[in-house]
Amino acid sequence: MNTLSRLEATIAERLAAGEASTSYVAQLHARGLPVIARKFGEEAVEATVAALAGSREELAGEAADVLFHLLVLLGEKGVPLADVLSELDRREGTSGLEEKASRSN
Amino acid sequence: MNTLSRLEATIAERLAAGEASTSYVAQLHARGLPVIARKFGEEAVEATVAALAGSREELAGEAADVLFHLLVLLGEKGVPLADVLSELDRREGTSGLEEKASRSN
Amino acid sequence: MNTLSRLEATIAERLAAGEASTSYVAQLHARGLPVIARKFGEEAVEATVAALAGSREELAGEAADVLFHLLVLLGEKGVPLADVLSELDRREGTSGLEEKASRSN
Amino acid sequence: MNTLSRLEATIAERLAAGEASTSYVAQLHARGLPVIARKFGEEAVEATVAALAGSREELAGEAADVLFHLLVLLGEKGVPLADVLSELDRREGTSGLEEKASRSN
Repeated sequence: MNTLSRLEATIAERLAAGEASTSYVAQLHARGLPVIARKFGEEAVEATVAALAGSREELAGEAADVLFHLLVLLGEKGVPLADVLSELDRREGTSGLEEKASRSN
Repeated sequence: MNTLSRLEATIAERLAAGEASTSYVAQLHARGLPVIARKFGEEAVEATVAALAGSREELAGEAADVLFHLLVLLGEKGVPLADVLSELDRREGTSGLEEKASRSN
Repeated sequence: MNTLSRLEATIAERLAAGEASTSYVAQLHARGLPVIARKFGEEAVEATVAALAGSREELAGEAADVLFHLLVLLGEKGVPLADVLSELDRREGTSGLEEKASRSN
Repeated sequence: MNTLSRLEATIAERLAAGEASTSYVAQLHARGLPVIARKFGEEAVEATVAALAGSREELAGEAADVLFHLLVLLGEKGVPLADVLSELDRREGTSGLEEKASRSN
């Protein structure tokens, strides 16, 4: 099982752990979806800045934070990572990566 | 080979394809790192908003956009996805998901 | 009357103009709060990137976009600009700009 | 003198105060432009989330944070607020608020 799928499973357990849990994920869950969305957005800002003003190591660290909080956000909303990956496969398979270019940017 | 690793390889090819290529990724590469960072950041905003005001399907679609543009950003900076996944493994393995909670947020 | 107050009044008129209006602000209003929030967030990303990778002129232009969409967002939510400025005055008057430093960052 | 112009002047003083100063603005200046850009971007994420999931009071507070950090960012880059306001005046005066709609969104 790969890193992201394993992490998704761990996060799902912790989201379901209830109030007694002191894990970071359980704390985020207790604070609610807006806080989780905010954390995700803030990590994305940090990755954006690291890409322009940081080292490769810093970007790798910030990208890990982005992926982690994206998985928490998906878990909180009940969206399986598999659905997101299927969407990426679908785009590449049917119309290719160029599809995006045809959409409004 | 899983979805993200395969996509990373495809993106790497297209980043290296040069000016003749008309793919979306090649166009982003030609426009430069700041444009790629901006696109990533904008997609993250869209995912944040979709998490709070959209359906699960919309969030899945925006999350796919986030992952796609994160891979382009990593590729442009020369950061292997494996480094990001190793960082996630390291955090979980050594100090657990709680590590993040101990950092300044 | 200064620029922001005058712009706030113009935006308020256009938010109230109804479906017949074809102004940009009326169109945003018709598309709803999540779209307005998204536009604001995207402009903020553009300003962040311009600050790090653009000229002073580019940052000035992006900052104008941020202020414009912030006013639309405030107008849509029914928050007077005066309330925001009062909050800035209050912070400076009572505890000084240092207040922020004492909060969790 | 209005709130934003007065705040701009205060921030300019503190940006120039040098290492001895312990003000929040002086600390941001010492940490450098990428940290200031990151703070601005994070505050914008918080305002975006507050617009969708918070009260009017919360949005007013987050909007104040956005304006404050935008002024610090402009000050650090040497962009006068007057240039940003002139740009807003110019857009409204010549081609109207509709101009934005004609640009790529």
